[in-house]
Amino acid sequence: MALSRSGKTGPLSDLIVVDLTRYLSGPYCTLLLADLGARVVKIESPGNGDDSRYVPPIEDGKSAYFMSINRGKESIALDLKNPEHRAILENMLEGADILVENFRPGVMDKLGYSAEFLAGRYPSLVYGSISGFGQTGPWRDLPAYDLVVQALSGMMSINGYPDGPPTRVGTSIGDLCAGVYAALAILAAVNERRRTGRGSRVDVAMLDCQVALLESHYMRHNVTGEEPGRVGSRHPLITPFDTFACADGYIVICTVGDAMYRNLVKAIGLPELQEHPLYRTPKDRLANGEALKSELEAHLGKAGREHWLKIVGEAGIPCSPINSIPEMADNEQLKARGLFVNVEADGFSYRAVRTPVRTRPGHDPAFSERAPMIDEHGDKIRAELADAG
Amino acid sequence: MALSRSGKTGPLSDLIVVDLTRYLSGPYCTLLLADLGARVVKIESPGNGDDSRYVPPIEDGKSAYFMSINRGKESIALDLKNPEHRAILENMLEGADILVENFRPGVMDKLGYSAEFLAGRYPSLVYGSISGFGQTGPWRDLPAYDLVVQALSGMMSINGYPDGPPTRVGTSIGDLCAGVYAALAILAAVNERRRTGRGSRVDVAMLDCQVALLESHYMRHNVTGEEPGRVGSRHPLITPFDTFACADGYIVICTVGDAMYRNLVKAIGLPELQEHPLYRTPKDRLANGEALKSELEAHLGKAGREHWLKIVGEAGIPCSPINSIPEMADNEQLKARGLFVNVEADGFSYRAVRTPVRTRPGHDPAFSERAPMIDEHGDKIRAELADAG
Repeated sequence: MALSRSGKTGPLSDLIVVDLTRYLSGPYCTLLLADLGARVVKIESPGNGDDSRYVPPIEDGKSAYFMSINRGKESIALDLKNPEHRAILENMLEGADILVENFRPGVMDKLGYSAEFLAGRYPSLVYGSISGFGQTGPWRDLPAYDLVVQALSGMMSINGYPDGPPTRVGTSIGDLCAGVYAALAILAAVNERRRTGRGSRVDVAMLDCQVALLESHYMRHNVTGEEPGRVGSRHPLITPFDTFACADGYIVICTVGDAMYRNLVKAIGLPELQEHPLYRTPKDRLANGEALKSELEAHLGKAGREHWLKIVGEAGIPCSPINSIPEMADNEQLKARGLFVNVEADGFSYRAVRTPVRTRPGHDPAFSERAPMIDEHGDKIRAELADAG
Repeated sequence: MALSRSGKTGPLSDLIVVDLTRYLSGPYCTLLLADLGARVVKIESPGNGDDSRYVPPIEDGKSAYFMSINRGKESIALDLKNPEHRAILENMLEGADILVENFRPGVMDKLGYSAEFLAGRYPSLVYGSISGFGQTGPWRDLPAYDLVVQALSGMMSINGYPDGPPTRVGTSIGDLCAGVYAALAILAAVNERRRTGRGSRVDVAMLDCQVALLESHYMRHNVTGEEPGRVGSRHPLITPFDTFACADGYIVICTVGDAMYRNLVKAIGLPELQEHPLYRTPKDRLANGEALKSELEAHLGKAGREHWLKIVGEAGIPCSPINSIPEMADNEQLKARGLFVNVEADGFSYRAVRTPVRTRPGHDPAFSERAPMIDEHGDKIRAELADAG
């Protein structure tokens, strides 16, 4: 009657997750749980399945986007308006520890699976919802995209350069961070359940999560009354601590403290800047940051990144190249960390980024099981439920 | 001999955390655990304490930065080179569930608290470390700042505009996201401990976490061979789905599907753009996105944000203002969600952003206890340890 545990080796291998999520925030949450060992059964609508199965790039008929976010999950196709299919879902929930969904608030109620119903029927179930604006408040029913959440949260207002427009963060942190916070909240609720036997209702809003990442800007505004703006890449309090253009690309240099500044200008061959009246003290340098950056870049532009990184690094000053994505993918430290995993699929193998935590030395919480086809595990799961019943 | 549980009401109220963290990534991790109910005892060096106590803005002699990231924790000052003080730490670890630190790798070994020592002496302890590059690999000993991590991960290469420089994300997501992932990994390890009785060694690297957020860019590069670049704020596949300048500021408009595009241009008074040969199909609009954006902005620039948001919103098209931090702080949905909490301190009360998850309706995992003064709970903790022994 109930689903069995995953048989995986991770720290969550005793947990069973019923997964009604689609697109990004929800599937990222359940990817984390799957990578950490949980058995995750993804419910998809018959026919098309998760809409994100059609997001490009498409490789061998499969969305690489979908394939990388849904690794290590099982799939069963269920029509939640069909009574027989509903019985299967309800049967699964009997033995599940966690239910996750990221529908618009109200959709679960319309399906007959309100939070009240679920809490009454499955009192030990941890029921987690991810939505744009949360399950409460006047905006709960409004649609949200990552771009809307980044705009409303203030994130775009502090991302970019002062002379440029507000800028969306180049990755979908609105979705992704909500997924990570939701996984955290779900595990906190699982912890409580072991003590009380009771499940929980976990409510995570993308907008709340985005604002949480702006904590220090909110705090600064509250304490000083200032409106935090865009400062490009520079450190707001320390100079030079910024990006610098070299002849063939950009690097970052981070000086902390007076001695480090002096070491920097000596090392790169501008010793006269040590006692320059505009740049003598940290305060001078902060006040004349733009002028100092121009002087440094005029000089750094005469040679390439490798040349300068060697000199600056050997002077004991934190610095690094600004990597492109292919350069990052080739980084020796990331390779040594085993951050990239091979996922084998029939006729299509791909690489993915594992969940970036380790809970045992040498044991990465990554499973090279590929993402499922629609309803790939449907028969197996139906048989499992029937056998046990 | 052991510390008692927190007496808080959150889902982690049975957990005791010994907290050796400083600055941001580690303290943010333990803030999440504290907000969710754990008892967190922060160990600080006698005298100055956590260096982040001196980060501006300073209000009433206290760093608002420190005060907001260290809410709800206790503080005891211990000199980890003093044998008596070490005995107190070791005494605390006997009864603790979790130890968190974010020293440079190797520092704990030098202090005599290597992972091997801790695992031998406290076999059920979950020991979590956050570092720039992780506990393994050739770069483990290098210093890392948020800027360095953002640069190396590729995050800066995809943040910003194509005609501008690579751009640091305007908040310290390198630190903050590592803190969230670490809290998640620690709770996963706590879950495993309940089954096995054994503790874990949790190893979280800021760089790994940053790369994990670039999952789809990494995947795209791998599948297509492309180098993902900066695209500003626009959607890479859909147009118009971007920021737009109005007379008094910026808004975002997100059209999905052909019908929504037609509704948009009709609603704002540019019906002729529906069948314009450059913009007729989604493919046309993507190919001629810059020209379309210019036409739209030339028109939207004739009135203010409120005017256009009303018209576009009423046409059923997702849109929103790009809020500044003060505008965000005044948002009615965030207020209704109770995301901002008052923290009362002697002579200095402040507001902070609570951990953005709820595990019970109406119950926010936020504690309005303020951050501690250095060693504020030292005597109480010493007495507690002595009493119980």
